[in-house]
Amino acid sequence: MRRITLLTDFGTRDGYVGAMKGVISSIFPAAVMDDVSHDVAQGDVRAGALALARYWDRFPGGTVHLAVIDPGVGTSRRAIAVEADRRFLVVPDNGLGSRVLDAASRWRAVAIENPEVLRRPTSATFHGRDVFAPAAAYLARGMHLFRLGPRIDDPVRIEEPVPSEREGEIRGEVVALDRFGNLITNVPGEVLKAAGGVEGVEVDGRRIPLGRTYAQVEPLQPVALINSDGRLEVGVRDSSAAEVLGAEVGTRVRIVMGPGAGKGPGGAGGALG
Amino acid sequence: MRRITLLTDFGTRDGYVGAMKGVISSIFPAAVMDDVSHDVAQGDVRAGALALARYWDRFPGGTVHLAVIDPGVGTSRRAIAVEADRRFLVVPDNGLGSRVLDAASRWRAVAIENPEVLRRPTSATFHGRDVFAPAAAYLARGMHLFRLGPRIDDPVRIEEPVPSEREGEIRGEVVALDRFGNLITNVPGEVLKAAGGVEGVEVDGRRIPLGRTYAQVEPLQPVALINSDGRLEVGVRDSSAAEVLGAEVGTRVRIVMGPGAGKGPGGAGGALG
Amino acid sequence: MRRITLLTDFGTRDGYVGAMKGVISSIFPAAVMDDVSHDVAQGDVRAGALALARYWDRFPGGTVHLAVIDPGVGTSRRAIAVEADRRFLVVPDNGLGSRVLDAASRWRAVAIENPEVLRRPTSATFHGRDVFAPAAAYLARGMHLFRLGPRIDDPVRIEEPVPSEREGEIRGEVVALDRFGNLITNVPGEVLKAAGGVEGVEVDGRRIPLGRTYAQVEPLQPVALINSDGRLEVGVRDSSAAEVLGAEVGTRVRIVMGPGAGKGPGGAGGALG
Repeated sequence: MRRITLLTDFGTRDGYVGAMKGVISSIFPAAVMDDVSHDVAQGDVRAGALALARYWDRFPGGTVHLAVIDPGVGTSRRAIAVEADRRFLVVPDNGLGSRVLDAASRWRAVAIENPEVLRRPTSATFHGRDVFAPAAAYLARGMHLFRLGPRIDDPVRIEEPVPSEREGEIRGEVVALDRFGNLITNVPGEVLKAAGGVEGVEVDGRRIPLGRTYAQVEPLQPVALINSDGRLEVGVRDSSAAEVLGAEVGTRVRIVMGPGAGKGPGGAGGALG
Repeated sequence: MRRITLLTDFGTRDGYVGAMKGVISSIFPAAVMDDVSHDVAQGDVRAGALALARYWDRFPGGTVHLAVIDPGVGTSRRAIAVEADRRFLVVPDNGLGSRVLDAASRWRAVAIENPEVLRRPTSATFHGRDVFAPAAAYLARGMHLFRLGPRIDDPVRIEEPVPSEREGEIRGEVVALDRFGNLITNVPGEVLKAAGGVEGVEVDGRRIPLGRTYAQVEPLQPVALINSDGRLEVGVRDSSAAEVLGAEVGTRVRIVMGPGAGKGPGGAGGALG
Repeated sequence: MRRITLLTDFGTRDGYVGAMKGVISSIFPAAVMDDVSHDVAQGDVRAGALALARYWDRFPGGTVHLAVIDPGVGTSRRAIAVEADRRFLVVPDNGLGSRVLDAASRWRAVAIENPEVLRRPTSATFHGRDVFAPAAAYLARGMHLFRLGPRIDDPVRIEEPVPSEREGEIRGEVVALDRFGNLITNVPGEVLKAAGGVEGVEVDGRRIPLGRTYAQVEPLQPVALINSDGRLEVGVRDSSAAEVLGAEVGTRVRIVMGPGAGKGPGGAGGALG
């Protein structure tokens, strides 16, 4: 059984996603299609890239991940297919696959150009239906990656900002808000654990206590924790950290290290869990 | 074919649900996963419990219903699995399964503790992925309920308020609003039918006519009817009863019985049926 | 493998869609159910009809399309099943299937009345669960269309307004907004291409440049193009045309033809694509 997952910013109510599912099932009638989301914010390639990173390698080998957030549809941006650690990715070449490429131990990619794969006529505005859906269906049906088109080595990548470390401080930033309003940062939890001696976390100058779960602080109080992706995250219990703290993507996050900082792992690890 | 249904308050756009589906399909590649919803209001365990009651026993025996609305994630609240009338329920032990337990003719439950089932490392903030999804997948694959962990007899239950009856009146309340803004009450339709002689229904002092369908009153007019779950419900045609009537969960509903009240079934049943 | 697609305005959070899926899978345990949408605007039969038209014939023959947008539930409106070009449609008889009937080369229809098909008791307010879902399940399981009930020849049809042409102008209107705020018109792209010599498109008196894709104009600028359904559409790059242009369903659209107009195909076709 070959699965195809779907991630788009199309919403569902207009039937565009239905058209994609129809194309897939007409090419590959046995396809099992699992929706991930059609509610990514319109055109938000960065958010989509982060979402993909949360699930792509949780699925079994052979799964085809179709993801279309494609403000450049109809321009010269390429359509690409990637094989990464035995899963496939079918995406516009606009950086949507960046976090998967970061995480994969090995990958290879092609531009989707095989005219036998594209739907004819190919619209200029809906490559989800006419380019990406059929490519995903053919991959799921067993077509070899290299039959989709010529190999490429330079897929577009959107880099995440890298946290900086100096004078006993790590400076990072908010790179995404999730639907609960939690602040997802670019600070890896590993760094915090290893450094030890974390005195505190500040978001825009406000000190946030360290914790392990949202429920361990009082309602409406903030907490900084290592989230399920292994990143530093700031949430507010039963509410939205984005709203309560007035934070957004790009808001600075500062981690102040205590005297034990830099002395190796284990220092104040207990504080974080 | 063993199905797994999914109900959460996670939204879909961040990929959290995708991660759950990935875990399920990696443990049980033949799983058929049917989304029920990922749009339950954040942390609204009561609403989720009522939603579950609408579908759990409509599915065939053997279906696994995975439901995660879990504001207490990472605390000492248990994760549980329930077998109720041949369907399975995998939920946090916070009352989410209450309406199913009310309705089931027989059930048995366990705490999910088998370390072979949990994903490692088990995050403190995302048991949907690391605890509930794998438990659901193993059950769907055929693992016996009792292999998930020790039997328990005291799952947390959230009681519904009970309507009171006195002096020719039944007093109930609104226990949920649905997405159309209909007022779902705790008054069973059976009571109305059996009592006979219903003179009228009042919501916050406003008299609402009795009917059978929304479309039988004029647009924007309210109607009280026995809904598809067998409960007294108040709707407003082509609009939201919650908005038009200014009602919310907890708003009082009064049923005034006429002279025939209490004289047995059949009295004014015609008015409602 | 027989697929059933689902389109409703129910939302998902209350579990109503879950109840429909449960009924389907209890009648036809091998059913593969593909969600199209549950987010159609409440009671918007026209929008649903247009959405259906985008996907119904993309699916393989034998697919059952279940669509329930049903403000008249419980009244005398019929429930119908249609076989159109080898796909099935199960819908309330309120015009929801109109665009499919327009497009199908052949169709036949029945009223769903077979008491063996309906769920008992049949609620007055939830025919999605008690009438449409079981009819779809029986069709997918192989029941013949004519076993559902008596043949009918007069399904309710909602006509689209027809564009008018005079004095070198085509006058159409906006018939739908999609989730991106694009203005979907009733002007077929073929007309534009064939007429040639299009000077411009006006929405409420504002001149909109012709193009091929959204991305070829500057951000926040409007563009008129032939969309993926072959219709004239007006969008605004990275934004909502409905908001930017203050347009809604019914807003007039005027296409001004140049000197070459009416001289046959090919005239200014290049400008459009």
